[in-house]
Amino acid sequence: MRLSQAFQPTLKEVPAEAQIASHRLMLRAGLVRQTSAGIYAWLPAGLRVLRNIAQIVREEQDAIGAQEVLMPTLQSADLWRRSGRYEAYGPEMLRIEDRHGRELLYGPTNEEMITDLFGSAVQSYKELPQLLYQIQWKFRDEIRPRFGVMRGREFYMKDAYSFDADYEGAVRSYYRMMLSYLRIFRRLGVVAVPMAADTGPIGGELSHEFLVMAPTGESGVFYDSDWDAIDWTQTPLDPENPQDLEKLQHLVATTYSATDEKHDVQAWEKLPPEKRREGRGIEVGHIFYFGTKYTEAMGIEISGPDGQPFAPQMGSYGIGVSRLVGAIIEASHDENGIIWPTEVAPYRFSLLNLRPGDEACDRVCGALYGADPDNILYDDRSERAGVKFNDADLLGLPWQVIVGPRSAKKGLVELKNRVTGERTELPLAEAAHQLGLTGVQA
Amino acid sequence: MRLSQAFQPTLKEVPAEAQIASHRLMLRAGLVRQTSAGIYAWLPAGLRVLRNIAQIVREEQDAIGAQEVLMPTLQSADLWRRSGRYEAYGPEMLRIEDRHGRELLYGPTNEEMITDLFGSAVQSYKELPQLLYQIQWKFRDEIRPRFGVMRGREFYMKDAYSFDADYEGAVRSYYRMMLSYLRIFRRLGVVAVPMAADTGPIGGELSHEFLVMAPTGESGVFYDSDWDAIDWTQTPLDPENPQDLEKLQHLVATTYSATDEKHDVQAWEKLPPEKRREGRGIEVGHIFYFGTKYTEAMGIEISGPDGQPFAPQMGSYGIGVSRLVGAIIEASHDENGIIWPTEVAPYRFSLLNLRPGDEACDRVCGALYGADPDNILYDDRSERAGVKFNDADLLGLPWQVIVGPRSAKKGLVELKNRVTGERTELPLAEAAHQLGLTGVQA
Repeated sequence: MRLSQAFQPTLKEVPAEAQIASHRLMLRAGLVRQTSAGIYAWLPAGLRVLRNIAQIVREEQDAIGAQEVLMPTLQSADLWRRSGRYEAYGPEMLRIEDRHGRELLYGPTNEEMITDLFGSAVQSYKELPQLLYQIQWKFRDEIRPRFGVMRGREFYMKDAYSFDADYEGAVRSYYRMMLSYLRIFRRLGVVAVPMAADTGPIGGELSHEFLVMAPTGESGVFYDSDWDAIDWTQTPLDPENPQDLEKLQHLVATTYSATDEKHDVQAWEKLPPEKRREGRGIEVGHIFYFGTKYTEAMGIEISGPDGQPFAPQMGSYGIGVSRLVGAIIEASHDENGIIWPTEVAPYRFSLLNLRPGDEACDRVCGALYGADPDNILYDDRSERAGVKFNDADLLGLPWQVIVGPRSAKKGLVELKNRVTGERTELPLAEAAHQLGLTGVQA
Repeated sequence: MRLSQAFQPTLKEVPAEAQIASHRLMLRAGLVRQTSAGIYAWLPAGLRVLRNIAQIVREEQDAIGAQEVLMPTLQSADLWRRSGRYEAYGPEMLRIEDRHGRELLYGPTNEEMITDLFGSAVQSYKELPQLLYQIQWKFRDEIRPRFGVMRGREFYMKDAYSFDADYEGAVRSYYRMMLSYLRIFRRLGVVAVPMAADTGPIGGELSHEFLVMAPTGESGVFYDSDWDAIDWTQTPLDPENPQDLEKLQHLVATTYSATDEKHDVQAWEKLPPEKRREGRGIEVGHIFYFGTKYTEAMGIEISGPDGQPFAPQMGSYGIGVSRLVGAIIEASHDENGIIWPTEVAPYRFSLLNLRPGDEACDRVCGALYGADPDNILYDDRSERAGVKFNDADLLGLPWQVIVGPRSAKKGLVELKNRVTGERTELPLAEAAHQLGLTGVQA
């Protein structure tokens, strides 16, 4: 994308209500714009990040055999009356009346709808387990929306639901999903630690929330440094193997982690001091096992091995996809701007032409840009070098390629690492190779 | 995907309100389920089709330099008061009040919001033209929703908006978009003909709708057979070349097409009889040029070459993505079920194991299935062959690979073409090659 043509309006003046770094940086870098209180439009660069995150979530959910569906945003109130949650949910539920006076609502979550869909589709225990998920917009009418996309009202969420014949199966589904979540967050480039949690309005007996470590997090957290060290994308744990899931369950039970609400000082002090990690965390995921709460309330039964009808066991599993955009920035930025982890960055790198119109600069930039124009952000604007440096740091792609007239004439470019700030001058072909581009020739 | 595990509940009894083929077939094949009047949940196979269509739309919109954004589903009523459409829109607009009593609405279209976003982001004519699009859920509170996803209330739509400095630029954007639409529909495997249209509540002076030819279409249509013949994905017309856009404009003006409302019998009778095509059509796209209608009403001005502020010229461009799923089926089915065009089919082919448990059948099927398990639908159920044949025809993938014990033992499979019904017996390796699979060995 040529920046001269990109719809990426950077903001110099950030509204006063933007109190936290991610909110300010997302507005300044032109990732989102607020359209109503707590409701945002995603501009091209922001949307690319949102979709990168959604795609990683999708790949990892597919990898454990979850099947993707897509439920509508609007649900009938009657569906929620069947579970008893319609009255209970409170003013965060956006209640709507259609032209015929029928009561609808904008789904804040989908336990009722998926339970009903499941009940209309599945007849026998032989079809279990089922693991279904969607990535869809939801709405919670927060009384005071703030912190940008971190606590918006219309938000993008991955929600999954499991159906099993018995408790043991449901616990396997629960830990299968936990493994998927640990892999997702690792791929997103953040440290997210599961912590035992209360179940709130979803209900149930077993629950963990996942917190991304960031200094501006809403909760204090305490955890064993093992949580930082394990690369979940590399563990040999097989989500299809019940013994591996038991291993994970054991590891979760024995590797300390707690929010300040549930902190156990005695257990904590048994940890060697060098393994103690304290900090703050942002909730980005939450998983629940709640047995037959919804299937029973809604009268959903299927036939068991003995021919008798029974209510399947359920769990539900959420990841805040739009919230993660903010959470990743909270965990990864500096005073100059965002620092995107590679897998979620909106483009591969920023290409800075320091003198558009200069033959050597244009030629070298053209050679690089031509190799993957859809995924390179080419700053071809007639702005001062300082403006380009600042804007590139602000948007925070992992790499910047800086092309100035003197070095370009010698076939050299500068490669800047956004994390370390390190700049290296090297031949064009070598830079292209490091960036994974093929067929680049000046 | 193994059909034994797939969440793809086929229906034997179709509700009486399903009057048209696509509605019946989508329910029977397990693509969607209705959750409220005119509101549908997309099950895995249906969602795959929806996403295939969206992806083709995305690729072709990107190819003409349109940039993707994503606007929220809920909009503020005040935004629509600025254009004067809030009161005018009528009962199809779903009006909502939030917990603070602020008026919102579920967007039926996005002219107001994009105009406001544009105005807050663009300062100068130098940044024009701009072409922005999104693919997002919308809501129109149809008084009598029917025909399944063809006239649902919550529907998935691609909407694009162009901003130009002057009339000539706006017309170029209009025909650039028309070229993109013609390519999209061609890739979707349907014949869609642009027809001059009224502008309705969007407003403006120049408008075409695109109709997919299908016997159950809502409008009678008359057109020159040239519209069938041109492969728009192969024309050398360059969307960046103004002369090519003029050629397209000329071609549209001189190649007859009209709905019955606008049919011109005199012009029609000048066509040689063998070129006359009469039939019925389903509207799947609609494009509008409306000048400064919204920019003026909303007070959006940018600075011109002379330093004076001016209101940019706009157009808007819609494709009904969820409606297209139904329209494609209306255009392409037979008495046994759906016949998917290759590019939108939910899977590459159906793999029918006629005797699961038979060593040769399992081995041959395993070899094929292993080559691309995510994109092959493997019927591994213990059902009678007749049931499998019927279900495969119903779902309508372009190819079926039929593996029976006698031929499997000889390393042979049967390849069935869903369009022609033709069945050919051939060696496994040859079938794999024809289906584009590599590395298949029994």
